[in-house]
Parts: sequence; C-alpha cells; structure tokens
Amino acid sequence: MKKVLITTVPFGEKDKTPLELLESNGIEYIINPLNRKLKEEELAELVSDFDAIIAGTEIISDYVMSCASNLKFISRVGIGLDSVDLLAAKKRGIDVSYTPDAPAPAVAELTIGLMLSLLRFIHISNNKIHEGGWQRFFGRRLEEMTIGIVGFGRIGSSVLKHLEGFLCKKVLINDIIDKPKFSSSLNIEWATKEKIYSQADVISIHLPLTSSTLNMIGLKELYSMKKDAILVNTSRGGIIDEESLFKVLKNNHLSGVALDVFEQEPYCGPLTSIERCLLTAHMGSMSSDCRTRMEIEATEEVVRFFSDEALLGTVPIDEYLVQKK
Amino acid sequence: MKKVLITTVPFGEKDKTPLELLESNGIEYIINPLNRKLKEEELAELVSDFDAIIAGTEIISDYVMSCASNLKFISRVGIGLDSVDLLAAKKRGIDVSYTPDAPAPAVAELTIGLMLSLLRFIHISNNKIHEGGWQRFFGRRLEEMTIGIVGFGRIGSSVLKHLEGFLCKKVLINDIIDKPKFSSSLNIEWATKEKIYSQADVISIHLPLTSSTLNMIGLKELYSMKKDAILVNTSRGGIIDEESLFKVLKNNHLSGVALDVFEQEPYCGPLTSIERCLLTAHMGSMSSDCRTRMEIEATEEVVRFFSDEALLGTVPIDEYLVQKK
Repeated sequence: MKKVLITTVPFGEKDKTPLELLESNGIEYIINPLNRKLKEEELAELVSDFDAIIAGTEIISDYVMSCASNLKFISRVGIGLDSVDLLAAKKRGIDVSYTPDAPAPAVAELTIGLMLSLLRFIHISNNKIHEGGWQRFFGRRLEEMTIGIVGFGRIGSSVLKHLEGFLCKKVLINDIIDKPKFSSSLNIEWATKEKIYSQADVISIHLPLTSSTLNMIGLKELYSMKKDAILVNTSRGGIIDEESLFKVLKNNHLSGVALDVFEQEPYCGPLTSIERCLLTAHMGSMSSDCRTRMEIEATEEVVRFFSDEALLGTVPIDEYLVQKK
Repeated sequence: MKKVLITTVPFGEKDKTPLELLESNGIEYIINPLNRKLKEEELAELVSDFDAIIAGTEIISDYVMSCASNLKFISRVGIGLDSVDLLAAKKRGIDVSYTPDAPAPAVAELTIGLMLSLLRFIHISNNKIHEGGWQRFFGRRLEEMTIGIVGFGRIGSSVLKHLEGFLCKKVLINDIIDKPKFSSSLNIEWATKEKIYSQADVISIHLPLTSSTLNMIGLKELYSMKKDAILVNTSRGGIIDEESLFKVLKNNHLSGVALDVFEQEPYCGPLTSIERCLLTAHMGSMSSDCRTRMEIEATEEVVRFFSDEALLGTVPIDEYLVQKK
C-alpha cells in the first residue's frame, strides 16, 4: 500500500474530496501531526517511510530527501517552488508536480483587500473603535493612485483585472518577460523596477522567490519609494528584506505595508510592533474554492502518479533552471 | 461681516482652499471647537451668532434653528439630509444646499475594502499576528459570491462598477426607483429586499435614512439572511437596528458585519466586543480627494449664497417630501 505524507495544513477540512480520493484509491495517508508549517528537521524525521508528499511550503531539501528512501513523488499544493530543492529531487529520481493556476484568483483578491485596507486605514480604525476610541482617518482612493505591479504572471495579471473596476490613474508593470500582449482599459506602462519604486503610490509584489529575487527590496529600494507609498507582498517572504523594512518603517517612511508572507512562518518578528504594518498569515490561497481546487489537483496528481498515468502538473524545466543559477 | 460656523471636522486640514476661499471673500469663520460631532444642545449653544453653517451630520433641528436668529443658510458637506429638519428650515426661510456627488467614489471604494476584509478575515488575522499568534483563515472570494445591493443611487451604482472587476457570480439589486437603464458586464437581477436578504452572500446597504428606512433591518430581517452572510453598511446608522444586530451576532448568525455608520457617533456600544464586527469611524467620504471636493463645494456654495449668486447644490424638493411622510 502506498503511503502519502500530507504536510500542508489545513487539508481536507472544508471539502473531504481529496481525502476520499486517496482512500478510494487505496492510498494510505497521514496529515501533518504538528498542525503547523514543519521545520526542515521535523520533516526529515517524519518523512522516512513515505512514498509521496502532498506538500505545503516547508523546506524539502536534499537532506530531507536523503531521509526518505521510499520517496518518489512530491505534489506541491500551490505555486512557488523555492521550498523544494528541484535539482536534488531530479538527481534522486523524485518527480515533482504543482498546481500553479489554482491559487491565483484568491491571492489576487486578497491583494486588493490589503491595498484598500491600507489606503483607508480600515484595520487601524477598527482597532481604535474596539478599544473604545474613535478616529477618522484621511485615506486615498485607488482611482487616484499610480499602481506598480512587480511581476506580471498569473497573479499580477489578475490583480490588474480587478484594478480595472477602480479606474486607477496609471499602472506601471514590470516583468522579466518583456511586454506580453494583452488588453486593458487602464493606462498601462511597462517600467523598470526602479521607476516603479520611485513613482508608484501602491507597489504590489508578485514574484517567485529565486536567487535573483532574494532580498531584492532592501534599504536602498525602500527609501527610493515615495514617503507615503504603500507596499504589498502576497508572493513570498524573503523578497523584501524584513530587517530593512522594519528600519524604514521605524524611520516614518512608507504610509503602510501589508505582508501575507514572511522569511519565517509563522511570523513573530518585530514588524508585529508596527501598527501600519498589516500582517496576515500566508492566507493568499486560502479561499474555500481555490484551496479546495489546489488540494484536489495535488491529490489527483498523486493518484495519477501511483496509477502510472500521465501527470498534468509536472514542474516545467524553467523552474529547474532558475534553481541552477 | 458674515459669520460661518463650520461644524464638520476635520475641515481644511488636508487642503486649505476652503478656508482661503472664506477669507478671500471676507467671511469670518469658526471651526467646531470640540473637534468631534456636536450634540444637539452643544450646537444650539454655539450657533446663536452665525449667518451660515457648513455642516456635518450633527442634528440641526427646529430647536437648534430657533437658537440661531441670524441663520440664513445651511451648507451640508456631503450627502444625507436626515440630520437637518428641512421643513423647519423652509418654515424659517433658511436655505439648504448639499454636495451629494462628491463623497460617492470614496464611499464605494471603502465598501469594497470592507467586503474583502470580512471575506478574507484580514483584520482578524492581522490582530492575531500583532498579538503573537498565527491563524490561517479560510475565506471566500467575491467572484464566487452573490452580492446584494440595497439602494442603487450614486454609491450603489459605483459599488457595482467596482464589482465588475471581480466578475461576481450574481448581483441582486433593489431600489425604490424601478429598474433604471444601465449596462453591466455582470449577471444582474432586480430583486425585492426580502430576496436579497435570503439569497445574497454579501449584502451592502446604500440608502438614505428616512422614516421608511429607520430600523428597516431588525431581528426578522437579520435572521432571514444566510447564516454565513456578510453585511456592510456605509450609508447611515439607524437603518440596521444595532440592538438586534448585537443579539444576532451573539447568536452566531452572520459571518461578518462591517459598519462605518452608527445610530450615535462616536460609537462606543456593545458591538465593539464582537471581533467579526468590523467598525470604522464614519470614514466613507474620507479620501483626500473626495473630502477636499466636498469641503470646497460646500464652501463655494456659502460664498455664492452671500454674493447673491445662483446656488448649485440646492436640496431638491424630493428630499423635503421624504421628511413630510
């Protein structure tokens, strides 16, 4: 009987379909008993006996794989492969699949929610009233803003679609792929990252974490942003250097920052002391529909793998090449 | 020299133009010295000596007017005339103007921000992390939701425009004016209030406060909503009965509620004890651009009044008729 370790939590909670799929295909499973993101060492201890992992964003290093002599398949629930050592997997003959499309709609909607919360001080006014106060904050409107989208893949382009309903003044876009063809009702301009940092009122990051994006936004980049700029990151922790961000915010730079992702998760660092730093618990993909779709897609891929059927979510070669750099 | 009492605060804070306008036209002014919404008695004491009021949402009753023997003009900053006894003003020969268009864009954007915050538990996850915790909430997406818009005037229709960018599944709309002509990319249905209450996942109120809308949403209406419905009110306090709302929320009905407006403001009632009740401090119109536009328009109207020029923002007769009912 094949055995699957499900590390990502929650799993099968809103919709039991993925668990039923495993059961009806005679696949044994265990769900992460610690009920939080596993550390590398914890995963290494747990994984020894399993044929496949249905994985979250925990580190699956060469070392972890070395502790898993039966491991033949990693099925990532979601997008982002920075946590998996793809080259080590290849070397060990472990296949890797992922579900890159499923989370995008949920991440894009959360991004707009974070922008609006920051622009209008929703979370801060809410806390004041719940504490017995009453403070009316002057906000700004999306329509009046120049938005900067850094990374124009599945999520960045969904964010743009949502922004169309707000008639934003201007949208500056940066991506390593130059100017793909698409239509938009907004005033779009392709721009360098530097131009986005210096000219956008709202900057939203939609990049994978790679050796080129690690600590991409540090002190210099943060200080090159407008003093009243708003910065949102729903992609991956590690792209914005948290220590620099803390310093810059302490120095009264930036009007507000929203982070859904952190260098270490769960996050409990010094940014929790800053009121205008809006922090959410890596919930980008956590809408019932998207999360369910991700879990089912990742599970179906495991079933296909063990039935020797063609895989649908195989990680493309580009993702391996990025890690080679 | 004409004297104007400016009761709404803040005023002229982000943009000094309205104050400069008064000065350059030789109009003396005092800004509300209590720096918060005035109670009826406080306004009655303050107002005796003034020729005009640039007014917020404080009560301007017949009694208040009786204490203001010089008062000839009320210029409301914003929309909503429930606070002004229009018939008493008419009887006393006091003209009333307002700025109904200016706040709409800001209120509509805040409404979407509140919806997204509730749907994704942004404010709650933020508080957990700031308190040292970490909780990933399952949310829902606007695209999956049936939205109910109650009141399809300036603000309700702007909300619909924003929702177009989210491709919402269905939008149910109710208004006393039957089916105005407009185009939308969404699946729209005109519906009774009862149908909206029972079928919508997200219900947003965009009504004036009148004798017909006072306490319009009480226990019966709240319990007719889906158990996991989301309710947003950025229009006027008093439309949703707060006591009933508190009971219903305590009884685990409704997934979340956002209120920007209250029966009494500043609000400090029992809803502050409920985490899933997102509360903001009547900030609907408080975007820099809209607020500035409202203040300038209301001030220009005062200048026109004292220069015997034609007024542009005179309250239409319908608003007087509503109060006659």
